[in-house]
Amino acid sequence: MDGHLRNGVVEVGGNARQQFHDARGYGRPADGNEIRLARVEAAHLLLRGDLTAVVDHDGSADRLSFEEFFVASAAAAERFALRFLVYADLRDRGFYLAPARAGWPGAAEADNDLIDLIVPPRGTKPGDSEPAYRIAVVGERESLPADELANLTLAVVDEESEISYLETATPEFDGGTTYSLPAGITGSLIGDRVVVWDAPDGFYDHGFYGQPLEVREAIIDTAVQLSLVEAAALAAEGQLVLDDADDDQSEATTFTATEIAGDTSPDSPASYTAIRKQGRRVEGERFDRRLAVYRMLRDRQVVPKTGYKFGADFRTYNTVESVEDLPHSERLVRVVETDHAFDPRELSLDVRLAGGVRKRMVFALTGANGEIDWLSVSRLTP
Amino acid sequence: MDGHLRNGVVEVGGNARQQFHDARGYGRPADGNEIRLARVEAAHLLLRGDLTAVVDHDGSADRLSFEEFFVASAAAAERFALRFLVYADLRDRGFYLAPARAGWPGAAEADNDLIDLIVPPRGTKPGDSEPAYRIAVVGERESLPADELANLTLAVVDEESEISYLETATPEFDGGTTYSLPAGITGSLIGDRVVVWDAPDGFYDHGFYGQPLEVREAIIDTAVQLSLVEAAALAAEGQLVLDDADDDQSEATTFTATEIAGDTSPDSPASYTAIRKQGRRVEGERFDRRLAVYRMLRDRQVVPKTGYKFGADFRTYNTVESVEDLPHSERLVRVVETDHAFDPRELSLDVRLAGGVRKRMVFALTGANGEIDWLSVSRLTP
Repeated sequence: MDGHLRNGVVEVGGNARQQFHDARGYGRPADGNEIRLARVEAAHLLLRGDLTAVVDHDGSADRLSFEEFFVASAAAAERFALRFLVYADLRDRGFYLAPARAGWPGAAEADNDLIDLIVPPRGTKPGDSEPAYRIAVVGERESLPADELANLTLAVVDEESEISYLETATPEFDGGTTYSLPAGITGSLIGDRVVVWDAPDGFYDHGFYGQPLEVREAIIDTAVQLSLVEAAALAAEGQLVLDDADDDQSEATTFTATEIAGDTSPDSPASYTAIRKQGRRVEGERFDRRLAVYRMLRDRQVVPKTGYKFGADFRTYNTVESVEDLPHSERLVRVVETDHAFDPRELSLDVRLAGGVRKRMVFALTGANGEIDWLSVSRLTP
Repeated sequence: MDGHLRNGVVEVGGNARQQFHDARGYGRPADGNEIRLARVEAAHLLLRGDLTAVVDHDGSADRLSFEEFFVASAAAAERFALRFLVYADLRDRGFYLAPARAGWPGAAEADNDLIDLIVPPRGTKPGDSEPAYRIAVVGERESLPADELANLTLAVVDEESEISYLETATPEFDGGTTYSLPAGITGSLIGDRVVVWDAPDGFYDHGFYGQPLEVREAIIDTAVQLSLVEAAALAAEGQLVLDDADDDQSEATTFTATEIAGDTSPDSPASYTAIRKQGRRVEGERFDRRLAVYRMLRDRQVVPKTGYKFGADFRTYNTVESVEDLPHSERLVRVVETDHAFDPRELSLDVRLAGGVRKRMVFALTGANGEIDWLSVSRLTP
């Protein structure tokens, strides 16, 4: 049986409707028993020998073999080869999926320009029920806008044509860490850290703030080193004061640009200013974004600690009762700008590493005003 | 016992030579029983209570406690807090280590400006034998020049003052993959890949070139998709010709800029040119560097395949006899420019991921002329 390519769609007559559409979910019914196939569908039927050839009425009117139709389609339709590889892979996995093009079954679901394929639950047909996956086909060198990725499935085709699937979601943070800090903690700003020489009980052990300055047989065992982010967050709440900052100086409150949301009048302005200034010196305005994320997580009773060893900004613990009995940290958080574009290779690296240490990878899309959108990404086997 | 700070060095008299130097490897002998301590050594002895105070003859002549000496030293000496943390950690691990400063024991070994600490084998003293580790102390936000990192140990201090150690080396590649290609392979350039419709026996199964274009119940089972790098490498050797390239066109040989070493006269100039042009279009001049690395590895009988899933450029197999019986890939290779500077966080991410999948992380420092220096990095517990 031949197909007929007209206006980029392949028309097939005969018993195509019963044989291809009704039995196996290919194409879209047209007049009578005729169906219309998208190029990827026609190429798939050609490769399986279900179609004999496609007559190219858009061009030469030649009868094209699979190879010829594939080459012609790759020249005529954007990212055809990638879309075909993913279409074929999902067919092989037992799905009756549909290309997301206007008027196609299920296409109403494709409210996102990135969506290429609509995949109904296994065993059902496009349009019969809610899609199981809304698939964006992506080449490994394409760039992915962070703020458009929520709630879809990425099928990333690498340079050797292997496909990996990633699913995205918008997670919530809701922890149960209830340690409350005593007032009046003081510290010294030393380079990229703040040392609290005489930390109160539970500061590290229950609040999981900082890291003890420990040396075997030391005569001091109360010193705790804070990162600049931890220290700035505490100073912003008035819970930490630097021993050499004069918190009565009103000049210290003159922050105007990129104020962090909800933070216009910290209780210890000079300490907060000094720490934040040092943070910006070593990290630029990324420091403010990381600080906003840190503060929001603490506000939700989640404990963020450095994610350095995992290449992330933070690892997070939902509920810390004591460091001696520390739970597994559940998530890795990377802070990116709201208009960040992911390189699929970096995304793959982050997600793979997180999976390997049994954590969920979460991106904090953080605006200069401190507003945060969360995006989690994880591997998926359809 | 007090120390006396003069010109940035802490002098200690009494029985200091026996008690601190001879017994425990601190400092450098001076006149009589006196020793001279670097600041990190003096701080360590203060924190353990072995020194009572340090009299600051460089400044106020006050007797400084540990806390005061620490704050003063952090203000006076670059990266003091970081160096102290690493010094103390290695002391706790049982090493008698020495700061790498001119005239200090073992300091002659510190021929690299990055070296901060010289660590002799456990149980021996600085200068008695070859160092076990030559340590560069690095803050997590410092930038590390790739071409100065060979054969040292990085002690990276993260923002929360935790330390991780990385060791570097210069690995060799020497594989045993001996598949030899038949002549006369042709393919079609389709977007970011080249499809060889009628691949010869063993092309994929033994040479591990490309990836079969597979669909269940397909009528064609000889099609293999090559990445642009694989295809360009084959075309450069005259082993692959594009079916729509005219390899007699002499104009195609007019490459002059950034020629790849040893590759001035490919046997199939037009095919090579067309593939390389497409490679540069999608990847810029990075394509040429990756191609140089790919070709050198194949030349050493090592098989490079994409490292996309690991966030790397390649994973490598030393000896492939058949894909059916594929060994574990031994290394991940990331291609960087010769003057690349690593961000410790990215380095940590790469090395951790590689360790998690039991591979060695290797960086290919690749010049525009195709010259390659190899650098492997792995985690270490001293």
